[in-house]
Amino acid sequence: MAAEIAEQPVVLARLLADGRAEIAQVRAAIEAYRPRFVLIAARGTSDHAALYAKYLVEVRLELPAGLASPSTLTVYGARPDLTGVLFLAVSQSGGSPDLVGSLEAARSCGALTVAITNNPSSALAAAAAHHVDLRAGLERAVAATKTYTAELLALYLLLTGGDASAIPDAAERTLSDAARAYAAAERYRFTQRLVTTARGFSYPTAREAALKVMETSYLSAQAFSGADLLHGPLAMIDPELPVIAVVSPGRGAAAMAPVVARLVDAGADVLRVGAPDGLPMASDGIPEELMPILEILPLQQLAWRLALDRGGDPDRPRGLSKVTETW
Amino acid sequence: MAAEIAEQPVVLARLLADGRAEIAQVRAAIEAYRPRFVLIAARGTSDHAALYAKYLVEVRLELPAGLASPSTLTVYGARPDLTGVLFLAVSQSGGSPDLVGSLEAARSCGALTVAITNNPSSALAAAAAHHVDLRAGLERAVAATKTYTAELLALYLLLTGGDASAIPDAAERTLSDAARAYAAAERYRFTQRLVTTARGFSYPTAREAALKVMETSYLSAQAFSGADLLHGPLAMIDPELPVIAVVSPGRGAAAMAPVVARLVDAGADVLRVGAPDGLPMASDGIPEELMPILEILPLQQLAWRLALDRGGDPDRPRGLSKVTETW
Repeated sequence: MAAEIAEQPVVLARLLADGRAEIAQVRAAIEAYRPRFVLIAARGTSDHAALYAKYLVEVRLELPAGLASPSTLTVYGARPDLTGVLFLAVSQSGGSPDLVGSLEAARSCGALTVAITNNPSSALAAAAAHHVDLRAGLERAVAATKTYTAELLALYLLLTGGDASAIPDAAERTLSDAARAYAAAERYRFTQRLVTTARGFSYPTAREAALKVMETSYLSAQAFSGADLLHGPLAMIDPELPVIAVVSPGRGAAAMAPVVARLVDAGADVLRVGAPDGLPMASDGIPEELMPILEILPLQQLAWRLALDRGGDPDRPRGLSKVTETW
Repeated sequence: MAAEIAEQPVVLARLLADGRAEIAQVRAAIEAYRPRFVLIAARGTSDHAALYAKYLVEVRLELPAGLASPSTLTVYGARPDLTGVLFLAVSQSGGSPDLVGSLEAARSCGALTVAITNNPSSALAAAAAHHVDLRAGLERAVAATKTYTAELLALYLLLTGGDASAIPDAAERTLSDAARAYAAAERYRFTQRLVTTARGFSYPTAREAALKVMETSYLSAQAFSGADLLHGPLAMIDPELPVIAVVSPGRGAAAMAPVVARLVDAGADVLRVGAPDGLPMASDGIPEELMPILEILPLQQLAWRLALDRGGDPDRPRGLSKVTETW
């Protein structure tokens, strides 16, 4: 896991260079299709990349979007009319039967299907009309790290066509100083609970950070959008329940300001990701839409270190295998 | 909260009787509109009703659907083309500025807007082209109960036009025996953590049950779809972390069977909602789509009793007010 965290700048640079032509080709196919709506399907870590894609589609493409509930196509056998719909499936392994089944169902219902995976010979890649290869190299740690940031970058390039050439260097600089992330891990050594929160493009970061500490350190880590947090879960916040708020610069962070103020009022212990006095990032000149690729890096370092400090093995969490098959 | 929990059979019967004409009228307007896609917006408890609506739309109407991320319309100012889109907003109070703002934005972008609230003079009701009144009477407890089940019923009637006449009596019979729910509350007296899980139509129940114990008893309660649970969070399951699995009869429960088996393998303490040896319901002859209205009832009783047992005040959770305003 540590090696794969460290490898991310190289993985991102490789995707930018070697993936460029393939991504441009799939992007052209999407543009020619002119989707009226976008459905995105994923599980686990990739579901957080899917949520990022939803924000990109809604804000940058200004198209309505939804996260697919695979069970409606597989368990319940629904066959909606999906002509004009872009169906994006995101998966590290490309191997989960329910994702393959829902993509096949979507394709037979008329959708344009695009799979983003780290395995061009996977069933998901084969089933989709188009495939984007993450080129991240074999990921061996059960807790996904490099494939997550590669998914975010692939989605950004695919959906916006924007320039992300500054990202590998910014990722390198962000990873180079892990001292604050490790200090935070030490501080969380004995907690069993954690809350993460953010809004907008950073909300997927809050979700992914919670999953990382769940799967490597077995904490009950809960992620909330800043708005949803105020609608109920705020009640459980007290000084015994640490909060990680992702507030890297942008409109999402501006919307988070009143949420953080309420948390502080409630006596919460708040660690700010993306703030100089919290876990800072090398984010100069990086647009808000690309910030999630950087935000997760110190949080991966935190999750890895916390697992070690607690006597766990972040490479082999109990009860999990690398490819999860669900139906 | 106890009074409002007990009132639900009456509230459901009232909505069936007095709401019939209004719901039929709005349903006719939706049918005439022939939506190509459905977006649903909500916060807090109502967001779980929105998730239920998403399953109904996908499975019963066989239309693609998505949960709106209000921030893309409000914080980021996106203006998508929403012609042909049905935009459903669900809110007890009808008062949250970000919901009103996103419904107004959706309406100006061409969507047919429908609000479902418990307050016909609310800003949300006024902003929408159509309004369905829940007729649940004033809800005074901060933790929503009767408005949640009323929202589920209103959505069922609005989206499917199905027969739900058996629901008030089934709710009455389900509520009449609270002994098992109270015994479960006693058993959870000292846990700080809880996991809830389900699939399909019952997944919103898992989400709502987690929120109830979060806001009344301040537990770190996490809800997972059964499939997502296997993709990572399974690692944190051990005998110290109780699990509530909603397995009332249906295709969702069938898909949950392998998940429950994995949980049992991991040594989890599993309480089955909708099973004879867990928290049973009076569900004879009730279709799977209506089961969520019953499933949540013993879980509300459990949340209420747990709050009392832990010395809290379920009517006035710390840090919350009844109408939450978010932007």
